Amino acid sequence: MLYLSFDSIKQTLATALAAAGFAPAPAAQLADVFARNSLEGVYSHGVNRFPRFLSDLEQGVILRDARPETVASLGGMEVWDGHFGPGPLTAEAAMARAIALSHTHGIACVAVRNTNHWLRPGRYGWQAAEAGVAALLFTNTSGNMPAWGAKDPRLGNNPLVLAIPRKKGAVVVDLAMSQFAYGKLELAALAGEQLPIPGGYDEAGALTTDPGAILHSQRILPAGYWKGSALSLGLDLMAAALSMGRTVSMIRADPLPERGLSQVFVAVDFRGLLDEAQVDHLLDGAIEDLLGSAPVEGGRPIRYPGQRREETIRHNLEHGVPVNEVTWQKILNWIAAHREEEIV
Amino acid sequence: MLYLSFDSIKQTLATALAAAGFAPAPAAQLADVFARNSLEGVYSHGVNRFPRFLSDLEQGVILRDARPETVASLGGMEVWDGHFGPGPLTAEAAMARAIALSHTHGIACVAVRNTNHWLRPGRYGWQAAEAGVAALLFTNTSGNMPAWGAKDPRLGNNPLVLAIPRKKGAVVVDLAMSQFAYGKLELAALAGEQLPIPGGYDEAGALTTDPGAILHSQRILPAGYWKGSALSLGLDLMAAALSMGRTVSMIRADPLPERGLSQVFVAVDFRGLLDEAQVDHLLDGAIEDLLGSAPVEGGRPIRYPGQRREETIRHNLEHGVPVNEVTWQKILNWIAAHREEEIV
Repeated sequence: MLYLSFDSIKQTLATALAAAGFAPAPAAQLADVFARNSLEGVYSHGVNRFPRFLSDLEQGVILRDARPETVASLGGMEVWDGHFGPGPLTAEAAMARAIALSHTHGIACVAVRNTNHWLRPGRYGWQAAEAGVAALLFTNTSGNMPAWGAKDPRLGNNPLVLAIPRKKGAVVVDLAMSQFAYGKLELAALAGEQLPIPGGYDEAGALTTDPGAILHSQRILPAGYWKGSALSLGLDLMAAALSMGRTVSMIRADPLPERGLSQVFVAVDFRGLLDEAQVDHLLDGAIEDLLGSAPVEGGRPIRYPGQRREETIRHNLEHGVPVNEVTWQKILNWIAAHREEEIV
Repeated sequence: MLYLSFDSIKQTLATALAAAGFAPAPAAQLADVFARNSLEGVYSHGVNRFPRFLSDLEQGVILRDARPETVASLGGMEVWDGHFGPGPLTAEAAMARAIALSHTHGIACVAVRNTNHWLRPGRYGWQAAEAGVAALLFTNTSGNMPAWGAKDPRLGNNPLVLAIPRKKGAVVVDLAMSQFAYGKLELAALAGEQLPIPGGYDEAGALTTDPGAILHSQRILPAGYWKGSALSLGLDLMAAALSMGRTVSMIRADPLPERGLSQVFVAVDFRGLLDEAQVDHLLDGAIEDLLGSAPVEGGRPIRYPGQRREETIRHNLEHGVPVNEVTWQKILNWIAAHREEEIV
């Protein structure tokens, strides 16, 4: 594992993006998203995913210069077409627009069709929370999870984010509809570890804690069995209906890798309507109560989602941001190859 | 089990509510909610819960004549105080208001504080779907579920509903954050059955499929373990923040039984912005794709949430609505006792 400074990561990624033809501003913005996701401890959706972004650009999954367009609007609601542009740029713009609209409309929504993978879902929740606005957002994905009771992966894991701003630290819930992410299964398989609870099916159709068997069958388990299955479907249909965009079924049918997703960004400026101090008092009481839970025998203290973010940022700023060595070398090689091309 | 006609159930419940002092219009509206929930097959939140409603009235948990009041508004967003009135009346009014607001604002939200149990969450999703509007709604509850990794039930099971209207049949996802409802555990315990998967902890702190052991420990399992736990917290904080209402922690601290809940009703009139036929085409494709899933060995065909509603209604209209005999006798006795009081 390499431990790199946040700034040097940003610089290197921006260099790569410039070599890929991005103008300085979007290159810097994208580099910041990748680097910051790693800085905040979400390594699977940070720098480690950057080579995938480069290959998506090369394959035409992501259209470098495409930018979103507003195709319909009514009051606090806008529908955008992402035109297959870079997902994180479109997502930050959509969240920013929903936040802005919420100041005058109370609640606002930007629904985006034909966008691309936004990396870490929670990032846009933090974006809202830092603007003092509550947010609820979700995306669909390609098919990667069977419905409860089914064998073939026709549902997406469709992550859902809830963000609640709070002076003493926002609460940002960021969860996919599968019990485990495929990335988590890969890590467990590499480490030769079993999952703590069943995470999917083996080829014979039995529930298993063996990550390798699930990777082989591609039959991952919905979180909460029938519950995650139903919620995944609901989020998919909602995202497609609100944006008149693709459903998981349509994304799956595309011969190119996962692209053209449907995403929904809802922002609520409750602080524009209500007494901020009173709301914070309510939230503080709930958090203190939760943290006072008695842990199970031998268990750790209960934390709330988002609680460890500041600590992780501080630690990674001090000790360096962990980046997989092979991934980093790939990125450096890519830059070297593309600079040579430029010189030729 | 009794099998009663839908109309006779409504009449009897309206009679009871009149005896409890309700005016004819709210009595008829409430009777319809209880009877219809049973008609649609959600027996735990229909007639079988009516005696609890009567006892809640008698204990002052529900204030019969209290009606909601708008305390703040901005654009498509309103905050209401339910003043501890009957939950289903306030919920139907809040959903109707959000639907009306969505026609001019695209997206709209009514957040309600100090309301009471709304019975079946999905009812208000169907209300929106029948008006051609998408909806997302949730409530908090009293503490009934430990956080993942904790022993004491400090979280609510906080049901969440997603409703997507569709010409060929709406999709309404209605789920609580616990893997099983306590009502379901009670039924399984009575039948001497084990749960198909672990549903909570026994007194010794071990995961168990024994419903009786979980009823005894009151340590029910969040759906998806850490996922249902996080989502429950997020929904609670969101509901309390948007309404400046009570959190689960505050509801738990009230010496009276569960009351003063926070609820959020979001409506999106996407049909006002987009081409209805095109959206329906997208949704139909996704549903057909899902229904084409290959069932697991020996499994049943895959269905979507809401699919069996029409069939259940038809069946119960033809054969009578199943009502627990003891419950029904309680209701009849209550009416007899209160009519006597009136005469005295």
